[in-house]
Amino acid sequence: MDHGRILIFAADHGVTVEGVSAYPREVTAQMVRTFSSGGAAITVLARTLGLEVEVVDVGVDAELPELPGVVAARVRRGSRNFVYEPAMNLEELEAALEAGRAAARRAVEADAVGLGDMGIGNTTAASALLSALTGASPAETVGRGTGVDDRGLAVKRSVVEATLGLHTPCFSDPRSALAAVGGLEIAALAGAAMEAARLRRAVLVDGFISTVAALAAVRLDPEIRPALFYSHRSAEAGHGLALAVLGASPLLDLGMRLGEGTGSALAFPILKGAAAILREMATFAQAGVADRADGGNP
Amino acid sequence: MDHGRILIFAADHGVTVEGVSAYPREVTAQMVRTFSSGGAAITVLARTLGLEVEVVDVGVDAELPELPGVVAARVRRGSRNFVYEPAMNLEELEAALEAGRAAARRAVEADAVGLGDMGIGNTTAASALLSALTGASPAETVGRGTGVDDRGLAVKRSVVEATLGLHTPCFSDPRSALAAVGGLEIAALAGAAMEAARLRRAVLVDGFISTVAALAAVRLDPEIRPALFYSHRSAEAGHGLALAVLGASPLLDLGMRLGEGTGSALAFPILKGAAAILREMATFAQAGVADRADGGNP
Repeated sequence: MDHGRILIFAADHGVTVEGVSAYPREVTAQMVRTFSSGGAAITVLARTLGLEVEVVDVGVDAELPELPGVVAARVRRGSRNFVYEPAMNLEELEAALEAGRAAARRAVEADAVGLGDMGIGNTTAASALLSALTGASPAETVGRGTGVDDRGLAVKRSVVEATLGLHTPCFSDPRSALAAVGGLEIAALAGAAMEAARLRRAVLVDGFISTVAALAAVRLDPEIRPALFYSHRSAEAGHGLALAVLGASPLLDLGMRLGEGTGSALAFPILKGAAAILREMATFAQAGVADRADGGNP
Repeated sequence: MDHGRILIFAADHGVTVEGVSAYPREVTAQMVRTFSSGGAAITVLARTLGLEVEVVDVGVDAELPELPGVVAARVRRGSRNFVYEPAMNLEELEAALEAGRAAARRAVEADAVGLGDMGIGNTTAASALLSALTGASPAETVGRGTGVDDRGLAVKRSVVEATLGLHTPCFSDPRSALAAVGGLEIAALAGAAMEAARLRRAVLVDGFISTVAALAAVRLDPEIRPALFYSHRSAEAGHGLALAVLGASPLLDLGMRLGEGTGSALAFPILKGAAAILREMATFAQAGVADRADGGNP
Protein backbone atom coordinates (compact mmCIF):
# COMPACT_ATOMS: atom_id res chain seq x y z
CA MET A 1 0.00 0.00 0.00
CA ASP A 2 2.60 2.54 -1.11
CA HIS A 3 1.10 4.07 -4.23
CA GLY A 4 -2.26 5.71 -4.45
CA ARG A 5 -3.98 7.38 -7.37
CA ILE A 6 -7.00 9.65 -7.27
CA LEU A 7 -9.29 9.26 -10.27
CA ILE A 8 -11.44 12.34 -10.81
CA PHE A 9 -14.26 11.90 -13.28
CA ALA A 10 -15.74 15.13 -14.65
CA ALA A 11 -18.98 15.67 -16.53
CA ASP A 12 -21.83 18.12 -16.91
CA HIS A 13 -25.49 17.53 -16.23
CA GLY A 14 -28.48 18.43 -18.38
CA VAL A 15 -30.52 19.07 -15.25
CA THR A 16 -28.51 22.24 -14.46
CA VAL A 17 -30.88 24.24 -16.72
CA GLU A 18 -33.50 23.76 -13.98
CA GLY A 19 -31.48 26.01 -11.63
CA VAL A 20 -30.44 23.30 -9.17
CA SER A 21 -26.89 24.56 -8.49
CA ALA A 22 -25.40 27.64 -6.88
CA TYR A 23 -22.76 27.69 -9.63
CA PRO A 24 -23.06 27.90 -13.43
CA ARG A 25 -22.15 24.79 -15.41
CA GLU A 26 -19.06 26.51 -16.86
CA VAL A 27 -17.41 25.82 -13.50
CA THR A 28 -17.02 22.13 -14.39
CA ALA A 29 -14.64 22.91 -17.26
CA GLN A 30 -12.91 25.65 -15.25
CA MET A 31 -12.23 23.22 -12.44
CA VAL A 32 -10.85 20.66 -14.90
CA ARG A 33 -8.37 23.34 -15.96
CA THR A 34 -7.59 24.08 -12.30
CA PHE A 35 -6.97 20.38 -11.62
CA SER A 36 -4.56 20.36 -14.55
CA SER A 37 -2.70 23.45 -13.37
CA GLY A 38 -2.49 22.09 -9.82
CA GLY A 39 -4.34 24.82 -7.94
CA ALA A 40 -7.36 22.84 -6.75
CA ALA A 41 -7.82 21.42 -3.26
CA ILE A 42 -7.39 17.85 -4.47
CA THR A 43 -4.22 18.58 -6.43
CA VAL A 44 -2.69 20.39 -3.43
CA LEU A 45 -3.61 17.49 -1.13
CA ALA A 46 -2.38 14.86 -3.56
CA ARG A 47 0.95 16.64 -4.02
CA THR A 48 1.34 17.01 -0.25
CA LEU A 49 0.42 13.42 0.51
CA GLY A 50 2.31 11.79 -2.35
CA LEU A 51 -0.63 10.71 -4.47
CA GLU A 52 -1.05 10.68 -8.24
CA VAL A 53 -4.08 12.34 -9.82
CA GLU A 54 -5.73 11.47 -13.11
CA VAL A 55 -8.65 13.55 -14.35
CA VAL A 56 -10.98 11.92 -16.87
CA ASP A 57 -13.29 14.11 -18.92
CA VAL A 58 -16.17 11.75 -19.42
CA GLY A 59 -18.71 14.40 -20.39
CA VAL A 60 -17.72 18.04 -19.86
CA ASP A 61 -19.83 20.43 -21.92
CA ALA A 62 -17.07 22.74 -23.16
CA GLU A 63 -14.31 22.95 -25.73
CA LEU A 64 -11.20 21.87 -23.85
CA PRO A 65 -7.68 21.73 -25.27
CA GLU A 66 -5.35 18.86 -24.42
CA LEU A 67 -4.47 19.42 -20.79
CA PRO A 68 -1.70 17.76 -18.77
CA GLY A 69 -3.10 15.11 -16.47
CA VAL A 70 -6.52 15.12 -18.16
CA VAL A 71 -7.64 12.10 -20.19
CA ALA A 72 -10.21 12.81 -22.89
CA ALA A 73 -12.86 10.08 -22.74
CA ARG A 74 -15.94 12.17 -23.40
CA VAL A 75 -19.09 10.17 -24.06
CA ARG A 76 -21.19 13.26 -24.81
CA ARG A 77 -21.24 16.94 -23.81
CA GLY A 78 -23.17 16.54 -20.61
CA SER A 79 -25.94 14.15 -19.70
CA ARG A 80 -29.49 14.80 -20.87
CA ASN A 81 -31.94 16.63 -18.61
CA PHE A 82 -33.55 13.79 -16.69
CA VAL A 83 -36.60 15.88 -15.88
CA TYR A 84 -37.69 15.11 -19.46
CA GLU A 85 -35.75 12.05 -20.62
CA PRO A 86 -33.19 9.53 -19.38
CA ALA A 87 -29.83 11.10 -18.54
CA MET A 88 -28.12 8.54 -20.76
CA ASN A 89 -29.21 5.84 -23.14
CA LEU A 90 -27.81 2.39 -22.46
CA GLU A 91 -24.98 2.74 -25.01
CA GLU A 92 -23.88 5.99 -23.37
CA LEU A 93 -24.11 4.36 -19.96
CA GLU A 94 -21.92 1.49 -21.11
CA ALA A 95 -19.39 3.92 -22.58
CA ALA A 96 -19.26 5.88 -19.30
CA LEU A 97 -18.85 2.69 -17.24
CA GLU A 98 -16.05 1.64 -19.60
CA ALA A 99 -14.32 5.04 -19.24
CA GLY A 100 -14.20 4.32 -15.51
CA ARG A 101 -12.96 0.76 -15.99
CA ALA A 102 -10.23 1.96 -18.35
CA ALA A 103 -9.02 4.51 -15.80
CA ALA A 104 -8.81 1.76 -13.17
CA ARG A 105 -6.78 -0.36 -15.58
CA ARG A 106 -4.39 2.55 -16.24
CA ALA A 107 -3.66 2.76 -12.50
CA VAL A 108 -1.28 -0.20 -12.75
CA GLU A 109 1.16 1.16 -10.16
CA ALA A 110 -1.47 2.05 -7.60
CA ASP A 111 -2.21 -0.20 -4.63
CA ALA A 112 -5.23 1.96 -3.87
CA VAL A 113 -7.49 3.96 -6.15
CA GLY A 114 -9.31 6.96 -4.69
CA LEU A 115 -12.56 8.10 -6.27
CA GLY A 116 -13.20 11.77 -6.98
CA ASP A 117 -15.80 13.74 -8.91
CA MET A 118 -16.38 17.10 -10.55
CA GLY A 119 -19.66 18.10 -12.14
CA ILE A 120 -21.89 21.08 -11.48
CA GLY A 121 -25.33 19.61 -10.81
CA ASN A 122 -24.08 16.22 -9.71
CA THR A 123 -25.50 16.33 -6.19
CA THR A 124 -28.93 16.57 -7.83
CA ALA A 125 -28.18 13.50 -9.95
CA ALA A 126 -26.70 11.62 -6.97
CA SER A 127 -29.76 12.46 -4.86
CA ALA A 128 -32.12 11.25 -7.58
CA LEU A 129 -30.08 8.07 -8.00
CA LEU A 130 -29.97 7.47 -4.25
CA SER A 131 -33.76 7.81 -4.11
CA ALA A 132 -34.06 5.50 -7.12
CA LEU A 133 -31.85 2.82 -5.57
CA THR A 134 -33.28 2.97 -2.05
CA GLY A 135 -36.83 4.28 -2.34
CA ALA A 136 -35.97 7.15 0.01
CA SER A 137 -37.84 10.40 -0.55
CA PRO A 138 -36.15 13.54 -1.91
CA ALA A 139 -36.56 15.06 1.56
CA GLU A 140 -34.02 12.47 2.75
CA THR A 141 -31.68 12.53 -0.24
CA VAL A 142 -31.52 16.15 -1.44
CA GLY A 143 -29.15 18.60 0.25
CA ARG A 144 -27.56 21.97 -0.44
CA GLY A 145 -24.71 20.71 -2.65
CA THR A 146 -22.25 23.54 -3.24
CA GLY A 147 -24.53 25.71 -1.15
CA VAL A 148 -27.94 26.57 -2.59
CA ASP A 149 -30.16 28.73 -0.40
CA ASP A 150 -33.59 27.70 0.90
CA ARG A 151 -35.29 28.60 -2.37
CA GLY A 152 -32.65 26.66 -4.33
CA LEU A 153 -33.11 23.68 -2.04
CA ALA A 154 -36.88 23.72 -2.67
CA VAL A 155 -36.27 23.86 -6.45
CA LYS A 156 -33.82 20.96 -6.19
CA ARG A 157 -36.27 18.84 -4.22
CA SER A 158 -39.15 19.46 -6.63
CA VAL A 159 -36.89 18.71 -9.61
CA VAL A 160 -35.88 15.38 -8.05
CA GLU A 161 -39.50 14.67 -7.16
CA ALA A 162 -40.59 15.19 -10.78
CA THR A 163 -37.65 13.14 -12.05
CA LEU A 164 -38.45 10.20 -9.81
CA GLY A 165 -42.06 10.28 -10.94
CA LEU A 166 -41.05 10.13 -14.60
CA HIS A 167 -38.55 7.30 -14.33
CA THR A 168 -40.00 5.03 -11.62
CA PRO A 169 -40.39 2.03 -13.97
CA CYS A 170 -36.58 1.98 -14.43
CA PHE A 171 -35.72 1.71 -10.76
CA SER A 172 -36.08 -2.03 -10.34
CA ASP A 173 -32.81 -2.50 -12.26
CA PRO A 174 -29.65 -0.68 -11.11
CA ARG A 175 -28.32 -0.35 -14.64
CA SER A 176 -31.44 1.34 -15.97
CA ALA A 177 -31.72 3.49 -12.83
CA LEU A 178 -28.14 4.69 -13.39
CA ALA A 179 -28.91 5.50 -17.03
CA ALA A 180 -32.17 7.27 -16.20
CA VAL A 181 -31.17 9.53 -13.30
CA GLY A 182 -27.40 9.19 -12.93
CA GLY A 183 -24.65 11.11 -14.66
CA LEU A 184 -21.75 10.32 -16.91
CA GLU A 185 -19.14 10.81 -14.16
CA ILE A 186 -21.27 8.87 -11.67
CA ALA A 187 -21.41 5.93 -14.06
CA ALA A 188 -17.66 6.21 -14.66
CA LEU A 189 -17.06 6.18 -10.88
CA ALA A 190 -19.11 2.99 -10.62
CA GLY A 191 -17.14 1.45 -13.48
CA ALA A 192 -13.83 2.41 -11.90
CA ALA A 193 -14.85 0.96 -8.53
CA MET A 194 -15.90 -2.34 -10.08
CA GLU A 195 -12.78 -2.71 -12.20
CA ALA A 196 -10.35 -1.65 -9.46
CA ALA A 197 -11.96 -4.17 -7.09
CA ARG A 198 -11.72 -6.86 -9.76
CA LEU A 199 -8.00 -6.03 -10.08
CA ARG A 200 -7.68 -6.47 -6.28
CA ARG A 201 -6.99 -2.83 -5.55
CA ALA A 202 -8.33 -1.06 -2.49
CA VAL A 203 -10.94 1.51 -3.51
CA LEU A 204 -11.23 4.67 -1.43
CA VAL A 205 -14.73 6.06 -1.78
CA ASP A 206 -14.92 9.84 -1.35
CA GLY A 207 -18.07 11.72 -0.32
CA PHE A 208 -21.72 11.86 -1.40
CA ILE A 209 -21.31 11.49 -5.19
CA SER A 210 -18.74 8.71 -4.94
CA THR A 211 -20.71 6.85 -2.29
CA VAL A 212 -23.88 6.86 -4.38
CA ALA A 213 -21.78 5.67 -7.33
CA ALA A 214 -20.35 2.95 -5.06
CA LEU A 215 -23.87 1.95 -4.06
CA ALA A 216 -24.80 1.61 -7.74
CA ALA A 217 -21.62 -0.42 -8.29
CA VAL A 218 -22.42 -2.73 -5.36
CA ARG A 219 -25.92 -3.26 -6.74
CA LEU A 220 -24.39 -4.14 -10.12
CA ASP A 221 -21.70 -6.37 -8.59
CA PRO A 222 -22.11 -7.20 -4.88
CA GLU A 223 -18.77 -9.03 -4.79
CA ILE A 224 -16.81 -5.77 -4.85
CA ARG A 225 -17.92 -4.86 -1.31
CA PRO A 226 -14.76 -5.97 0.54
CA ALA A 227 -12.57 -3.76 -1.67
CA LEU A 228 -14.42 -0.57 -0.75
CA PHE A 229 -13.13 1.72 2.01
CA TYR A 230 -15.19 4.75 2.94
CA SER A 231 -13.06 7.85 3.41
CA HIS A 232 -15.27 10.28 5.22
CA ARG A 233 -18.72 11.33 6.30
CA SER A 234 -19.63 14.34 4.20
CA ALA A 235 -21.73 17.23 5.46
CA GLU A 236 -23.99 16.78 2.39
CA ALA A 237 -27.47 15.78 3.53
CA GLY A 238 -27.96 12.43 1.79
CA HIS A 239 -24.54 11.00 2.57
CA GLY A 240 -25.49 9.51 5.92
CA LEU A 241 -28.30 7.57 4.29
CA ALA A 242 -26.05 6.28 1.50
CA LEU A 243 -23.43 5.16 4.04
CA ALA A 244 -26.07 3.50 6.20
CA VAL A 245 -27.49 1.56 3.26
CA LEU A 246 -23.98 0.32 2.51
CA GLY A 247 -23.31 -0.47 6.19
CA ALA A 248 -20.24 1.78 5.98
CA SER A 249 -18.34 3.42 8.85
CA PRO A 250 -16.16 6.08 7.25
CA LEU A 251 -12.62 6.72 8.41
CA LEU A 252 -12.98 10.49 8.78
CA ASP A 253 -15.72 12.86 9.90
CA LEU A 254 -14.38 16.36 9.37
CA GLY A 255 -17.42 18.23 8.05
CA MET A 256 -15.95 18.30 4.55
CA ARG A 257 -18.20 18.58 1.48
CA LEU A 258 -16.02 19.44 -1.48
CA GLY A 259 -15.83 16.28 -3.55
CA GLU A 260 -12.91 16.13 -6.03
CA GLY A 261 -11.56 13.12 -4.10
CA THR A 262 -10.40 15.29 -1.20
CA GLY A 263 -11.73 12.78 1.34
CA SER A 264 -10.10 9.89 -0.51
CA ALA A 265 -6.77 11.72 -0.42
CA LEU A 266 -6.94 12.46 3.32
CA ALA A 267 -7.96 8.90 4.14
CA PHE A 268 -5.20 7.29 2.09
CA PRO A 269 -2.46 7.70 4.75
CA ILE A 270 -4.69 5.89 7.26
CA LEU A 271 -5.10 2.95 4.90
CA LYS A 272 -1.38 3.02 4.17
CA GLY A 273 -0.58 3.08 7.89
CA ALA A 274 -2.94 0.19 8.62
CA ALA A 275 -1.41 -1.89 5.83
CA ALA A 276 2.10 -1.19 7.13
CA ILE A 277 1.09 -2.26 10.65
CA LEU A 278 -0.24 -5.56 9.31
CA ARG A 279 2.92 -6.09 7.26
CA GLU A 280 5.71 -4.83 9.52
CA MET A 281 4.77 -4.69 13.19
CA ALA A 282 6.46 -7.21 15.46
CA THR A 283 4.28 -9.47 17.58
CA PHE A 284 4.95 -9.43 21.33
CA ALA A 285 6.64 -12.83 20.98
CA GLN A 286 8.89 -11.55 18.17
CA ALA A 287 9.78 -8.45 20.19
CA GLY A 288 10.44 -10.44 23.37
CA VAL A 289 7.74 -8.56 25.24
CA ALA A 290 6.35 -10.21 28.38
CA ASP A 291 2.95 -11.87 28.42
CA ARG A 292 0.00 -10.46 30.25
CA ALA A 293 0.18 -10.87 34.00
CA ASP A 294 -3.24 -12.55 34.00
CA GLY A 295 -2.51 -14.86 31.08
CA GLY A 296 -5.20 -13.25 28.90
CA ASN A 297 -4.86 -12.33 25.27
CA PRO A 298 -3.18 -9.03 24.43
CA MET B 1 3.98 21.77 7.87
CA ASP B 2 6.36 19.32 6.20
CA HIS B 3 8.27 17.80 9.07
CA GLY B 4 6.73 16.06 12.04
CA ARG B 5 8.35 14.38 15.00
CA ILE B 6 6.72 12.01 17.46
CA LEU B 7 8.06 12.39 21.01
CA ILE B 8 7.47 9.25 23.06
CA PHE B 9 8.08 9.65 26.77
CA ALA B 10 8.55 6.41 28.70
CA ALA B 11 8.44 5.79 32.44
CA ASP B 12 7.34 3.28 35.02
CA HIS B 13 4.79 3.76 37.77
CA GLY B 14 5.07 2.81 41.41
CA VAL B 15 1.36 2.06 41.48
CA THR B 16 1.81 -1.07 39.32
CA VAL B 17 2.53 -3.09 42.48
CA GLU B 18 -1.17 -2.72 43.27
CA GLY B 19 -2.05 -4.96 40.29
CA VAL B 20 -3.66 -2.25 38.15
CA SER B 21 -2.34 -3.41 34.77
CA ALA B 22 -2.82 -6.47 32.60
CA TYR B 23 0.91 -6.41 31.82
CA PRO B 24 4.00 -6.57 34.07
CA ARG B 25 6.07 -3.41 34.37
CA GLU B 26 8.98 -5.03 32.49
CA VAL B 27 6.97 -4.34 29.34
CA THR B 28 7.83 -0.62 29.53
CA ALA B 29 11.54 -1.30 29.01
CA GLN B 30 10.83 -4.02 26.45
CA MET B 31 8.72 -1.61 24.43
CA VAL B 32 11.47 1.04 24.58
CA ARG B 33 13.77 -1.57 22.98
CA THR B 34 11.09 -2.35 20.40
CA PHE B 35 10.73 1.37 19.57
CA SER B 36 14.49 1.49 19.07
CA SER B 37 14.55 -1.56 16.82
CA GLY B 38 11.60 -0.25 14.78
CA GLY B 39 9.10 -3.05 15.31
CA ALA B 40 6.45 -1.17 17.30
CA ALA B 41 3.21 0.17 15.86
CA ILE B 42 4.37 3.78 16.19
CA THR B 43 7.72 3.17 14.52
CA VAL B 44 6.03 1.36 11.63
CA LEU B 45 3.50 4.19 11.24
CA ALA B 46 6.16 6.89 11.51
CA ARG B 47 8.34 5.21 8.89
CA THR B 48 5.35 4.79 6.57
CA LEU B 49 4.13 8.36 7.01
CA GLY B 50 7.53 10.07 6.94
CA LEU B 51 7.73 11.12 10.58
CA GLU B 52 10.72 11.18 12.91
CA VAL B 53 10.50 9.46 16.30
CA GLU B 54 12.40 10.32 19.45
CA VAL B 55 11.98 8.19 22.55
CA VAL B 56 12.84 9.79 25.88
CA ASP B 57 13.44 7.55 28.89
CA VAL B 58 12.27 9.84 31.64
CA GLY B 59 11.83 7.14 34.26
CA VAL B 60 11.99 3.53 33.08
CA ASP B 61 12.69 1.10 35.91
CA ALA B 62 15.28 -1.10 34.20
CA GLU B 63 18.91 -1.21 33.18
CA LEU B 64 18.93 -0.06 29.60
CA PRO B 65 21.98 0.20 27.35
CA GLU B 66 22.42 3.12 24.98
CA LEU B 67 19.80 2.52 22.29
CA PRO B 68 19.52 4.23 18.90
CA GLY B 69 16.74 6.80 18.93
CA VAL B 70 16.37 6.73 22.71
CA VAL B 71 17.42 9.75 24.79
CA ALA B 72 18.40 9.00 28.38
CA ALA B 73 16.80 11.64 30.61
CA ARG B 74 15.78 9.50 33.53
CA VAL B 75 14.63 11.41 36.60
CA ARG B 76 14.25 8.28 38.71
CA ARG B 77 13.48 4.58 38.18
CA GLY B 78 9.72 4.88 38.13
CA SER B 79 7.43 7.18 40.05
CA ARG B 80 6.58 6.43 43.66
CA ASN B 81 3.41 4.51 44.50
CA PHE B 82 0.86 7.29 44.92
CA VAL B 83 -1.39 5.09 47.04
CA TYR B 84 1.06 5.89 49.87
CA GLU B 85 2.99 9.01 48.89
CA PRO B 86 3.21 11.58 46.11
CA ALA B 87 4.32 10.08 42.79
CA MET B 88 7.04 12.75 42.54
CA ASN B 89 8.41 15.44 44.77
CA LEU B 90 8.48 18.93 43.28
CA GLU B 91 12.13 18.69 42.20
CA GLU B 92 11.43 15.46 40.36
CA LEU B 93 8.35 17.02 38.79
CA GLU B 94 10.41 19.97 37.58
CA ALA B 95 13.05 17.62 36.15
CA ALA B 96 10.39 15.62 34.30
CA LEU B 97 8.78 18.80 32.91
CA GLU B 98 12.22 19.96 31.79
CA ALA B 99 12.93 16.60 30.08
CA GLY B 100 9.81 17.28 28.04
CA ARG B 101 10.77 20.86 27.28
CA ALA B 102 14.25 19.78 26.19
CA ALA B 103 12.78 17.21 23.77
CA ALA B 104 10.58 19.94 22.26
CA ARG B 105 13.65 22.16 21.83
CA ARG B 106 15.54 19.32 20.09
CA ALA B 107 12.75 19.07 17.51
CA VAL B 108 14.11 22.10 15.65
CA GLU B 109 13.25 20.79 12.17
CA ALA B 110 9.72 19.78 13.07
CA ASP B 111 6.74 21.96 12.17
CA ALA B 112 4.58 19.69 14.30
CA VAL B 113 5.37 17.68 17.39
CA GLY B 114 3.25 14.62 18.11
CA LEU B 115 2.90 13.40 21.69
CA GLY B 116 3.27 9.73 22.56
CA ASP B 117 3.60 7.70 25.75
CA MET B 118 4.76 4.36 27.04
CA GLY B 119 4.42 3.29 30.65
CA ILE B 120 2.76 0.23 32.15
CA GLY B 121 0.36 1.60 34.76
CA ASN B 122 -0.02 4.99 33.14
CA THR B 123 -3.76 4.81 32.49
CA THR B 124 -4.17 4.50 36.27
CA ALA B 125 -2.05 7.62 36.81
CA ALA B 126 -3.85 9.49 34.02
CA SER B 127 -7.24 8.54 35.48
CA ALA B 128 -6.21 9.73 38.94
CA LEU B 129 -4.86 12.97 37.48
CA LEU B 130 -8.00 13.53 35.41
CA SER B 131 -10.10 13.08 38.55
CA ALA B 132 -7.76 15.41 40.44
CA LEU B 133 -7.99 18.14 37.77
CA THR B 134 -11.73 17.89 37.14
CA GLY B 135 -13.31 16.50 40.29
CA ALA B 136 -14.80 13.63 38.28
CA SER B 137 -15.23 10.32 40.09
CA PRO B 138 -13.11 7.24 39.32
CA ALA B 139 -16.23 5.67 37.84
CA GLU B 140 -15.95 8.32 35.09
CA THR B 141 -12.18 8.36 34.66
CA VAL B 142 -10.98 4.77 35.10
CA GLY B 143 -11.11 2.34 32.15
CA ARG B 144 -9.59 -0.95 31.10
CA GLY B 145 -6.23 0.42 29.88
CA THR B 146 -4.37 -2.34 28.05
CA GLY B 147 -7.29 -4.60 28.86
CA VAL B 148 -7.85 -5.52 32.49
CA ASP B 149 -10.82 -7.78 33.17
CA ASP B 150 -13.77 -6.87 35.42
CA ARG B 151 -11.85 -7.76 38.57
CA GLY B 152 -8.85 -5.73 37.42
CA LEU B 153 -11.11 -2.80 36.63
CA ALA B 154 -12.57 -2.94 40.17
CA VAL B 155 -9.04 -3.00 41.64
CA LYS B 156 -8.02 -0.05 39.48
CA ARG B 157 -11.06 1.97 40.57
CA SER B 158 -10.50 1.32 44.25
CA VAL B 159 -6.80 2.17 43.92
CA VAL B 160 -7.69 5.50 42.30
CA GLU B 161 -10.38 6.09 44.92
CA ALA B 162 -7.85 5.59 47.75
CA THR B 163 -5.28 7.75 45.95
CA LEU B 164 -7.69 10.63 45.51
CA GLY B 165 -8.62 10.48 49.17
CA LEU B 166 -4.98 10.69 50.24
CA HIS B 167 -3.96 13.60 48.01
CA THR B 168 -7.09 15.78 47.86
CA PRO B 169 -5.39 18.80 49.46
CA CYS B 170 -2.98 18.96 46.50
CA PHE B 171 -5.65 19.20 43.84
CA SER B 172 -6.30 22.92 43.97
CA ASP B 173 -2.96 23.53 42.22
CA PRO B 174 -2.22 21.77 38.90
CA ARG B 175 1.50 21.53 39.65
CA SER B 176 1.04 19.76 42.95
CA ALA B 177 -1.74 17.57 41.49
CA LEU B 178 0.65 16.48 38.74
CA ALA B 179 3.36 15.70 41.30
CA ALA B 180 0.97 13.83 43.60
CA VAL B 181 -0.90 11.57 41.19
CA GLY B 182 0.77 12.01 37.79
CA GLY B 183 3.72 10.20 36.34
CA LEU B 184 7.16 11.07 35.06
CA GLU B 185 6.22 10.63 31.39
CA ILE B 186 2.92 12.47 31.93
CA ALA B 187 4.80 15.44 33.34
CA ALA B 188 7.30 15.27 30.47
CA LEU B 189 4.41 15.26 27.97
CA ALA B 190 3.03 18.38 29.63
CA GLY B 191 6.45 20.03 29.49
CA ALA B 192 6.88 19.13 25.82
CA ALA B 193 3.43 20.50 24.94
CA MET B 194 4.11 23.81 26.71
CA GLU B 195 7.55 24.28 25.17
CA ALA B 196 6.53 23.25 21.65
CA ALA B 197 3.61 25.68 21.81
CA ARG B 198 5.93 28.44 23.05
CA LEU B 199 8.20 27.71 20.05
CA ARG B 200 5.12 28.10 17.78
CA ARG B 201 4.96 24.46 16.76
CA ALA B 202 1.70 22.62 16.26
CA VAL B 203 1.23 20.00 18.97
CA LEU B 204 -0.59 16.80 18.07
CA VAL B 205 -2.10 15.32 21.20
CA ASP B 206 -2.47 11.53 21.07
CA GLY B 207 -4.96 9.55 23.18
CA PHE B 208 -5.96 9.33 26.83
CA ILE B 209 -2.53 9.75 28.50
CA SER B 210 -1.45 12.60 26.23
CA THR B 211 -4.79 14.37 26.52
CA VAL B 212 -4.69 14.29 30.32
CA ALA B 213 -1.11 15.59 30.12
CA ALA B 214 -2.34 18.31 27.75
CA LEU B 215 -5.09 19.20 30.23
CA ALA B 216 -2.46 19.57 32.97
CA ALA B 217 -0.37 21.71 30.60
CA VAL B 218 -3.34 23.94 29.77
CA ARG B 219 -4.03 24.39 33.49
CA LEU B 220 -0.37 25.36 33.98
CA ASP B 221 -0.31 27.64 30.91
CA PRO B 222 -3.70 28.42 29.31
CA GLU B 223 -2.07 30.32 26.45
CA ILE B 224 -0.90 27.12 24.79
CA ARG B 225 -4.45 26.12 23.85
CA PRO B 226 -4.39 27.31 20.20
CA ALA B 227 -1.31 25.18 19.47
CA LEU B 228 -2.99 21.93 20.51
CA PHE B 229 -4.60 19.65 17.91
CA TYR B 230 -6.39 16.55 19.13
CA SER B 231 -5.57 13.50 17.02
CA HIS B 232 -8.20 10.99 17.89
CA ARG B 233 -10.92 9.83 20.24
CA SER B 234 -9.55 6.81 22.06
CA ALA B 235 -11.64 3.86 23.14
CA GLU B 236 -10.23 4.29 26.68
CA ALA B 237 -13.07 5.18 29.05
CA GLY B 238 -11.94 8.54 30.44
CA HIS B 239 -10.83 10.05 27.15
CA GLY B 240 -14.22 11.46 26.21
CA LEU B 241 -14.36 13.36 29.49
CA ALA B 242 -10.83 14.74 29.07
CA LEU B 243 -11.65 15.89 25.54
CA ALA B 244 -14.92 17.45 26.66
CA VAL B 245 -13.21 19.40 29.44
CA LEU B 246 -10.75 20.73 26.87
CA GLY B 247 -13.54 21.49 24.38
CA ALA B 248 -11.69 19.33 21.87
CA SER B 249 -13.09 17.71 18.70
CA PRO B 250 -10.52 15.13 17.66
CA LEU B 251 -9.63 14.58 14.02
CA LEU B 252 -10.04 10.79 14.07
CA ASP B 253 -12.36 8.33 15.77
CA LEU B 254 -11.12 4.86 14.87
CA GLY B 255 -11.56 2.94 18.11
CA MET B 256 -7.80 2.96 18.71
CA ARG B 257 -6.37 2.66 22.24
CA LEU B 258 -2.68 1.91 21.92
CA GLY B 259 -0.90 5.10 22.91
CA GLU B 260 2.73 5.37 21.73
CA GLY B 261 1.74 8.38 19.62
CA THR B 262 -0.07 6.20 17.07
CA GLY B 263 -2.98 8.64 16.91
CA SER B 264 -0.63 11.61 16.54
CA ALA B 265 1.09 9.86 13.63
CA LEU B 266 -2.15 9.06 11.79
CA ALA B 267 -3.48 12.59 12.29
CA PHE B 268 -0.32 14.30 11.04
CA PRO B 269 -1.14 13.92 7.32
CA ILE B 270 -4.49 15.63 7.91
CA LEU B 271 -2.78 18.60 9.55
CA LYS B 272 -0.20 18.63 6.77
CA GLY B 273 -2.93 18.55 4.13
CA ALA B 274 -4.87 21.35 5.79
CA ALA B 275 -1.75 23.52 5.99
CA ALA B 276 -1.00 22.89 2.30
CA ILE B 277 -4.56 23.88 1.33
CA LEU B 278 -4.21 27.17 3.21
CA ARG B 279 -0.83 27.82 1.60
CA GLU B 280 -1.24 26.60 -1.97
CA MET B 281 -4.85 26.36 -3.09
CA ALA B 282 -5.98 28.89 -5.70
CA THR B 283 -9.00 31.04 -4.93
CA PHE B 284 -11.83 30.97 -7.46
CA ALA B 285 -10.76 34.42 -8.64
CA GLN B 286 -7.15 33.26 -9.12
CA ALA B 287 -8.28 30.15 -10.96
CA GLY B 288 -10.69 32.11 -13.20
CA VAL B 289 -13.66 30.14 -11.92
CA ALA B 290 -17.09 31.69 -12.38
CA ASP B 291 -18.98 33.26 -9.50
CA ARG B 292 -22.05 31.74 -7.97
CA ALA B 293 -25.15 32.10 -10.09
CA ASP B 294 -26.97 33.70 -7.16
CA GLY B 295 -24.14 36.06 -6.19
CA GLY B 296 -23.68 34.41 -2.77
CA ASN B 297 -20.39 33.51 -1.15
CA PRO B 298 -18.73 30.27 -2.19
